[in-house]
Amino acid sequence: MSGHLTIAGLGPGAEGLIAPEASAALARATDVLGYIPYVRRIAPRPGLTLHETDNREELDRARHAISLAQAGKSVVVVSSGDPGVFAMAAAVFEALEEIAPEDHPEITVIPGITAMLAAAARAGAPLGHDFCAINLSDNLKPAETIRHRIRHAALGGFAIGFYNPRSKARPDGFARALEVLREICEPERIVIFARAVSTPDEAITVTTLAEAREEMADMRTVVLIGNAQTRRVGRWVYTPRSWEQA
Amino acid sequence: MSGHLTIAGLGPGAEGLIAPEASAALARATDVLGYIPYVRRIAPRPGLTLHETDNREELDRARHAISLAQAGKSVVVVSSGDPGVFAMAAAVFEALEEIAPEDHPEITVIPGITAMLAAAARAGAPLGHDFCAINLSDNLKPAETIRHRIRHAALGGFAIGFYNPRSKARPDGFARALEVLREICEPERIVIFARAVSTPDEAITVTTLAEAREEMADMRTVVLIGNAQTRRVGRWVYTPRSWEQA
Repeated sequence: MSGHLTIAGLGPGAEGLIAPEASAALARATDVLGYIPYVRRIAPRPGLTLHETDNREELDRARHAISLAQAGKSVVVVSSGDPGVFAMAAAVFEALEEIAPEDHPEITVIPGITAMLAAAARAGAPLGHDFCAINLSDNLKPAETIRHRIRHAALGGFAIGFYNPRSKARPDGFARALEVLREICEPERIVIFARAVSTPDEAITVTTLAEAREEMADMRTVVLIGNAQTRRVGRWVYTPRSWEQA
Repeated sequence: MSGHLTIAGLGPGAEGLIAPEASAALARATDVLGYIPYVRRIAPRPGLTLHETDNREELDRARHAISLAQAGKSVVVVSSGDPGVFAMAAAVFEALEEIAPEDHPEITVIPGITAMLAAAARAGAPLGHDFCAINLSDNLKPAETIRHRIRHAALGGFAIGFYNPRSKARPDGFARALEVLREICEPERIVIFARAVSTPDEAITVTTLAEAREEMADMRTVVLIGNAQTRRVGRWVYTPRSWEQA
């Protein structure tokens, strides 16, 4: 029996933002693996085994998923958002390096709606021009690399989406990010805090770099920073398509 | 009668990658507006008027959509991918600036799966670490701004997604982008050409910066550039989650 490993994104939270291809893969699955809150989004049914694991166990979870697929199971690894954006897809390919290519199971990656795009849609179109995505977690990269990237993103004139801005284990990362931005960007720069977008806990706050405070972010927040031309119209925020040189 | 304006993304091409919220908005619509090939993806039905318009008419299309919503229609403006990424959402908010806030129609933006994330999924997980999106079209921004952004993206160590790399009207933009990258990045840097992802015309080519040629891209191609640590495993390409300082 030939197994299959699908790596799928569940989108930001709402059922209506899950791609039908991801739902179809889940309907066919014998085994679903993922971080506890994401697996809890999957309805149990006969013939489906749900494997919930903790955060920071990505590589072990990936190895487990690969071995189940090798054993003939129809396996889905779930992430929130898009599985290729700071999520499980990279962990699965990392685990795949431990295995000879001829033993790789069949793999499909199904893209999803990542948090920064869902957040942008709620605010208007703040990412309407060139933009970057930066993971502020320093679990897997040095804090100096993060500062270096923020600096180049700001100097390059990109709008920026910050993932994982702040957690109990890393209370200071976002404060440091704001410091770097304040060295380069004007105080009026628009900052959007988008928490738990498309869930019942959704909260959107639009403010400026001068007014932004680290405690406005937590682990369920994506923070969007506009570019120098991002502005408000009515209750909306958008970044013009044209770039006018200052 | 109170109208409504929805700005929705149709994803990269496949029906199975359209968010159910977008499909539901289309099912309720009285009027759908968009660039010709995107509107042709919508099935005609009684009670639905399809308004196809040409490329480069985004602002007029946005004004038309707003006026239809003000007149009580249930209007959907469609883009491919995500409407907030180099697409119609910013044009609608730009047109909204011409109208007093009290006359703004009710607006909803529904996010979608943008081309670079669909392309990344096909290749593996090349955007598994920090990344940028850059529109190479110089219709709306100076060529020097584009070069400046590419330089900062490369110096910052970001993976990069290039949208609209090349068209008949702009044959040289992508060649210039490759020149800038070659000044900064090593020849072995992985480059992915992803054409028409999730459509019958899909074609994925994985190569290196040394081997990349401008004619490998056209207007239906998204080009992904890995970061310095992006690598191959079997038939896949991925960017490790950890960043090891060189």
